[in-house]
Amino acid sequence: MNIIKEGYTVTPIGQIRSCYPEKFGVPRQAGLVAAATARLEFFAPYGREEMVRGLEKFSHIWVIFLFHESIEEGWRPTVRPPRLGGQQRVGLYASRSPHRPNPLGMSVVRLEKILENHGTIALQLSGVDLLDGTPVLDIKPYVPYVDKREDATEGFTAQTFAEIAVTIPDTVLVFCRQYQVETGRDLLALLSETLKFDPRPASQRTVGRIYGMRFWDVNVRWVVEDDGFRVLGCDRVGDTPLQ
Amino acid sequence: MNIIKEGYTVTPIGQIRSCYPEKFGVPRQAGLVAAATARLEFFAPYGREEMVRGLEKFSHIWVIFLFHESIEEGWRPTVRPPRLGGQQRVGLYASRSPHRPNPLGMSVVRLEKILENHGTIALQLSGVDLLDGTPVLDIKPYVPYVDKREDATEGFTAQTFAEIAVTIPDTVLVFCRQYQVETGRDLLALLSETLKFDPRPASQRTVGRIYGMRFWDVNVRWVVEDDGFRVLGCDRVGDTPLQ
Repeated sequence: MNIIKEGYTVTPIGQIRSCYPEKFGVPRQAGLVAAATARLEFFAPYGREEMVRGLEKFSHIWVIFLFHESIEEGWRPTVRPPRLGGQQRVGLYASRSPHRPNPLGMSVVRLEKILENHGTIALQLSGVDLLDGTPVLDIKPYVPYVDKREDATEGFTAQTFAEIAVTIPDTVLVFCRQYQVETGRDLLALLSETLKFDPRPASQRTVGRIYGMRFWDVNVRWVVEDDGFRVLGCDRVGDTPLQ
Repeated sequence: MNIIKEGYTVTPIGQIRSCYPEKFGVPRQAGLVAAATARLEFFAPYGREEMVRGLEKFSHIWVIFLFHESIEEGWRPTVRPPRLGGQQRVGLYASRSPHRPNPLGMSVVRLEKILENHGTIALQLSGVDLLDGTPVLDIKPYVPYVDKREDATEGFTAQTFAEIAVTIPDTVLVFCRQYQVETGRDLLALLSETLKFDPRPASQRTVGRIYGMRFWDVNVRWVVEDDGFRVLGCDRVGDTPLQ
């Protein structure tokens, strides 16, 4: 097998079921939005219970996955990272952009719980930046003595930006409370945290513009105001069965 | 394209040229042996200079690669990590073993220098745990605010073990000094650091046993004594041209 010339075919070991059915709204990095939850469901024969023995002692894991919804768009040698306001170009390899020659992603996420059903496991995760349906290729424990590099410099990511003020009207609070009672999902935390980090593309900064964003089966509408974002309303998308 | 069912073919963007031509001796994790150096050579069209613009501001990068020499051996659901003395089994997903359903590796290494030759780049790296010839699939900047998880627990990797005392005779010191003059390579640092972390398989612990290990084109012989390792000698392997 000549890997260098012919490549190598990877096979998903499982799939992510997450709160993000659409790309718009997915956090730009893992760990930013603690309320972003997901379940990693393994495919046979990759979900045998013995394969996770000892994993419960790690608080965090790496998920290695394919950016499946970015593949068709291809890649370019330079990109404009949102963190630089979308104005400046950096080389693709200096960024974590999903548009790469090999569309491989890696995210450190919190391992909340190992679930088991008749010998097949699933992992409950939080702090994800993973689209619903993401094909997973591997998981590995996050090992602090190798992965936590105290002396690493931050490059252009040292650039910080202010969190956005988010206004949520009472009607939305009531909707979120009701939704949580029915589904157990903390929609309120998820939408406030997601909006706080400004999900808009760097090119869109117009006051008055209205956006729609999906979390699970809920559509959230919000508007850009002078001093932040205001949530307008939430609607359950009727034809989507709860997972 | 149905990735879940059919998989996805990844294509190497480059290849590692490292001080480790053989598996025996490769550090068990990245960052342990600072003297372990490598060059990442890109293949066209993945090595265009603009693709690394801004990368020079990061001290560390992730290298995502294929464990090409572990593929044929396949994988098992549990493994015996060297850190647990080779006695205890843990699930494959709780380990960083190279024998995985998808043989993908990820290592944080130090980015020493970006080299350029007629518009094609190469990266000079240190602190590697990468075999010579390793096919590279992607590189990404190490971003402290997402990759450095302060609250991550260590699982079984909290287990530490003593560094081995290494005795190096004068003849070997002279050899190393001469080799460094000729090649610029710090063989002495490399062999002392590599031995210090005990490269032996956990199953082999016999006093008196003699080992051979290759660094670049040099074969190093050493013996296990009661209180540590003693280097016996170094030989240049004649038929290997210097890279």
